[in-house]
Amino acid sequence: MTDVEAPRPKYAQIAEMLRSRIKRGDYPPGSNLPSEDHLARELGVSRVTVNRAVSVLRAAGDVTVKRGSGTVVRSLPKIVRDAEARYAARDEGTGAGEVEARKLNLRPRTDYLEIGQTAAPAEVAQALDIAEGQPVLVRRRVLYANDEPTQMADSYYPWELVKDSAELLQPEAGVGGSLTRLAELGYPPVRFAEDIDVRLPTPEEHQVLQIEATQPVFRIWRVTYSHDRRPIEICDHVMPGHLWTLHYGWRDEASNTRRDQ
Amino acid sequence: MTDVEAPRPKYAQIAEMLRSRIKRGDYPPGSNLPSEDHLARELGVSRVTVNRAVSVLRAAGDVTVKRGSGTVVRSLPKIVRDAEARYAARDEGTGAGEVEARKLNLRPRTDYLEIGQTAAPAEVAQALDIAEGQPVLVRRRVLYANDEPTQMADSYYPWELVKDSAELLQPEAGVGGSLTRLAELGYPPVRFAEDIDVRLPTPEEHQVLQIEATQPVFRIWRVTYSHDRRPIEICDHVMPGHLWTLHYGWRDEASNTRRDQ
Repeated sequence: MTDVEAPRPKYAQIAEMLRSRIKRGDYPPGSNLPSEDHLARELGVSRVTVNRAVSVLRAAGDVTVKRGSGTVVRSLPKIVRDAEARYAARDEGTGAGEVEARKLNLRPRTDYLEIGQTAAPAEVAQALDIAEGQPVLVRRRVLYANDEPTQMADSYYPWELVKDSAELLQPEAGVGGSLTRLAELGYPPVRFAEDIDVRLPTPEEHQVLQIEATQPVFRIWRVTYSHDRRPIEICDHVMPGHLWTLHYGWRDEASNTRRDQ
Repeated sequence: MTDVEAPRPKYAQIAEMLRSRIKRGDYPPGSNLPSEDHLARELGVSRVTVNRAVSVLRAAGDVTVKRGSGTVVRSLPKIVRDAEARYAARDEGTGAGEVEARKLNLRPRTDYLEIGQTAAPAEVAQALDIAEGQPVLVRRRVLYANDEPTQMADSYYPWELVKDSAELLQPEAGVGGSLTRLAELGYPPVRFAEDIDVRLPTPEEHQVLQIEATQPVFRIWRVTYSHDRRPIEICDHVMPGHLWTLHYGWRDEASNTRRDQ
């Protein structure tokens, strides 16, 4: 048995109390937190303690400090990303990128940073099973919900596969999104694999995603395979950790095997 | 198009250089980083800059500061957690908890903090579809690889289901682990669902997992279902983010549907 007791410092208790007030709706989404002076007086603690407590909330993404408007309660709800469901949804005509925002009645928007031919970076080339520097189509974009950035996503396709698809070379990839285009080109997606890491944002991500340098991001690296295990798409996603819950579901393989016997 | 250029501060460049030296093996796993004074002289920058660079590596989990032994390079490799494969492995007699460590030839160890009856916390009760406070079996443990903590895992089972299983009430749950015991009790696992969040560690996690208060953790909440969508197990995992890559794979449902037609 290990001793797992740890003292609970004052600022952590205050942070917990402010968080439960936010959850309860005392400080609604998009509203300002009371000033630190006000909170210090109300709670009978020092301003330094309140300041440390607010730092905890900032680091956790519960509040954001906006220049000129003080400390603001996060306005986006936690977004659930259901890996399987989002691709299945393309049969209803929706690209995967905006599925989650629509489900929550948030207003989705996609800004395209780059669409065109580029030389495959080492990691992409390896995953696509082509030589480094071979031409690929890159589609770099930033997704928003209610004008708040929710993810950066860079997709890569082997150039030979997609060079004749006018739709993949323009921002709107058409009904059902890029996966539907790949199917039309003779490469239907058959299997997906995602690797998830967590890390601190790079300076670029920190700026584009409007998060603190201390707020962790999810990095999801997806490979889409067609028949014969052929990789047809890489997607490299970077998402503010506090905004997302990632959901995966699967049937038990051991019990499947037994059923088949 | 958005302007995504950002200046790259000196300390970030130094952090990147130190990281590539670690990757190259100049500073091998478990060894000490040269002193900050030494690095400042070698690289021709101020000690303050080196100190900020080392802070970046600490936050990313590349190095740990150990009292009395200076700044030490992380000794565990990145561990891949393949969700589907780890449960399938139980047919070979291995419980899921130690699969990844064994695969990397690391020495696994499990410390049990608590095994016994408890009142179901609200979140657990809801997921198990029982009333809050109803009795559940809890199995709380900390997993290690080469004596370094890699995860905390708390599993919960409806008491009525497991009360007659002597093995589930003791540390070693027997060949194939707890899921094999549930199958023997008439509740084979049929489907798994995992929700992944990222957040900063609580004081307890920070202490047990031996990580910095600023290092994000993965929180994986798994529900295991038997036939008739009956929830039979909850597992609440907390894992240092820098140690793990989470892997999920699945077949495309839209293409499955089309195949079935």
